Amino acid sequence: MTTRDDCLRRDAADPLRRFRDRFHLPDGLVYLDGNSLGPLPRELPARLHATLAREWGEGLIRSWNDADWIGLPRRLGAAIAPLIGARPHEVIVADSTSINLYKLLLGGLALRPGRQVVLAEAGTFPTDLYMAEGAAARAAGIVVRRVESDAELLAAIDETVAVVMLTHVDFRSGRLHDMAVVTAAAHAAGALVLWDLAHSVGALPIALNEAGADLAVGCTYKYLNGGPGAPAFLYVAEALQASLPAALPGWLGHARPFDFAADYEAAPGIDRQLCGTPPVLSMAALQAALALWPEVDMAALRAKSQALTGLFIDLVEARCPGLELATPREPDRRGSQVAFRHPEGYAIVQALIGRDVIGDFRTPDLLRFGFAPLYVRYVDVWDAVERLASVLAEEAWRDPRYRARAAVT
Amino acid sequence: MTTRDDCLRRDAADPLRRFRDRFHLPDGLVYLDGNSLGPLPRELPARLHATLAREWGEGLIRSWNDADWIGLPRRLGAAIAPLIGARPHEVIVADSTSINLYKLLLGGLALRPGRQVVLAEAGTFPTDLYMAEGAAARAAGIVVRRVESDAELLAAIDETVAVVMLTHVDFRSGRLHDMAVVTAAAHAAGALVLWDLAHSVGALPIALNEAGADLAVGCTYKYLNGGPGAPAFLYVAEALQASLPAALPGWLGHARPFDFAADYEAAPGIDRQLCGTPPVLSMAALQAALALWPEVDMAALRAKSQALTGLFIDLVEARCPGLELATPREPDRRGSQVAFRHPEGYAIVQALIGRDVIGDFRTPDLLRFGFAPLYVRYVDVWDAVERLASVLAEEAWRDPRYRARAAVT
Repeated sequence: MTTRDDCLRRDAADPLRRFRDRFHLPDGLVYLDGNSLGPLPRELPARLHATLAREWGEGLIRSWNDADWIGLPRRLGAAIAPLIGARPHEVIVADSTSINLYKLLLGGLALRPGRQVVLAEAGTFPTDLYMAEGAAARAAGIVVRRVESDAELLAAIDETVAVVMLTHVDFRSGRLHDMAVVTAAAHAAGALVLWDLAHSVGALPIALNEAGADLAVGCTYKYLNGGPGAPAFLYVAEALQASLPAALPGWLGHARPFDFAADYEAAPGIDRQLCGTPPVLSMAALQAALALWPEVDMAALRAKSQALTGLFIDLVEARCPGLELATPREPDRRGSQVAFRHPEGYAIVQALIGRDVIGDFRTPDLLRFGFAPLYVRYVDVWDAVERLASVLAEEAWRDPRYRARAAVT
Repeated sequence: MTTRDDCLRRDAADPLRRFRDRFHLPDGLVYLDGNSLGPLPRELPARLHATLAREWGEGLIRSWNDADWIGLPRRLGAAIAPLIGARPHEVIVADSTSINLYKLLLGGLALRPGRQVVLAEAGTFPTDLYMAEGAAARAAGIVVRRVESDAELLAAIDETVAVVMLTHVDFRSGRLHDMAVVTAAAHAAGALVLWDLAHSVGALPIALNEAGADLAVGCTYKYLNGGPGAPAFLYVAEALQASLPAALPGWLGHARPFDFAADYEAAPGIDRQLCGTPPVLSMAALQAALALWPEVDMAALRAKSQALTGLFIDLVEARCPGLELATPREPDRRGSQVAFRHPEGYAIVQALIGRDVIGDFRTPDLLRFGFAPLYVRYVDVWDAVERLASVLAEEAWRDPRYRARAAVT
């Protein structure tokens, strides 16, 4: 059986161990919620301060040119591209994941006229379903069909389907789709695939181009550590860029925004998916957070992620009776997060936070833990399970202060 | 005739003079582009740093509750409300102006079924037209009708019009609409009015409630000094909040986002106009920028704005032959900006920037200058005209380096 010393030894041998120091992590805290909000990169405040003081404070309006603020959506997209297996000009940073999904879904529907179905998973992240329903309501005759399982998904992909919209890693269970298999199945039926990478980008290597993926959106405040509510990204495969219309045709998606022309003319490439003025301060923060990624060996990242999640599953199952695994046991079928079920899940998570281990709760009964391989250590896994076991053994979750629901869970 | 000493005396007597020190303004620079990007508030970097270090760095995910990040859209909306004559619960901060306009336009169209027309001005800010066309394309049978003049506008408001969409202050000419008159005319015909306040909020007092205005959007990086690309706001009159649908139904507009329910249920009030996760860092910056506004006497602000723009018009017309005024001469008919026409406008603006006076150029021939009353002084007006006169007298704009167009103008 693994010991705490074994964990310390694994940390000492971890090829990614040097990255932990690149983040601010409060003393004594075991942070297993980087799948919801990544921690503050140490270099970020100084870089953001330079944007404030030099670019905004001194440069003022001139910085749109001199500091290339206008190029930030493309520059940040190019920095994300290698993490998702895309070419630099196939990714831009803009708006929120919800809004980008709306853009690409309506755009994708226009490329498949005569088809009526957006295929989605019933358990996907709710905003994806809401925005898909919102987009469907704006496109005559379109319905969102929800499937309950992978088997049902593959069976439902037929010539009525315009777009298959999937979350790469499920936000509750951590289940990982085989992107190449699903994309191929969709293409065989003539459908497009739109991937939501919110819970996979920065958690594992992604190969959009290799899988032939058409469209994708993703979030930068989880494993990419861009800060709370950091701007999202979107991907449009090069082959689709010239034909995919702009569903939200704002001025920065215009071919020549500074002509201030009365009529819209879409920019030739992915730029047409830009809409309003880019949020420069948020983008400067994200730029600082993205700076370390070229140093990261993504294969080592995935190997450590699988080792951390595997160790957590093993230790919890050995030491925490009453918890039921809700994440695929096969390492290749999951992302970098693990969920367990327990009827007192909410209070258990709160009690655990009271003992300086931060995970989160997802209704109705899921305890969810994220293992960001850049800064989570094997010894953190050990300590988290130790405290989880004690919370359960002591029934600490019965304390009323752990049972009152906060606004945000 | 006014002298430079007169200007210095007026500055010494200016009731708003103490606000200039609240901003970082580079030494020797005359900044007349706050209508495009406001300068850095001095308190902002320290406040943003506290959000980074304490709320994000130490608080991590807990700050959604503990620092009330989740309440930022409403709290910032409530801070903007008094500047636009609205009640605190009628304004939220979210997304970009373009996207908010799309939301409210589609929402407004749903409240006027059977009417086919969105009425807009041909010369309005282009993104408004583009987004209106984009929204119209998503609502069966809707057309955007463009009018060329105020007379044509009032004549065109009839029972076919669902929404009158207007920019309160024209981005080129600075022409100010009479909000009460136009809103009353729209209501008399049964139409809604959607105001774009981008060039008026923070530049002059606005009375949405008093005018009976229905809907509004606005920008926070101009006269509100929230930083480049700062998040936008939207206003929905209380009476419409329960019936106006959410055109972009993202998870944070859900009645209970943290139930993660499979089906969308709109939040009861204006919150349904939220969509994705709020950009906390940008919002923290904006919060710092909004902190000084409760101290500002809006009547004094308007009086100084009219005095600055009037002085500028007088001095330019006296000293700068060849420039033609493109802004209403009557103080009550303009916002806080002044535009002049000249066929060499672009190069003249560049030459002026070379002499440390920053205005901007708007195609095809407009030199545009903004006079933000919180930090622009009478002596700045004097110095700007002095240098503009010398650029013209010396024909400094003939220099080829001033003629090469930058990416952003």
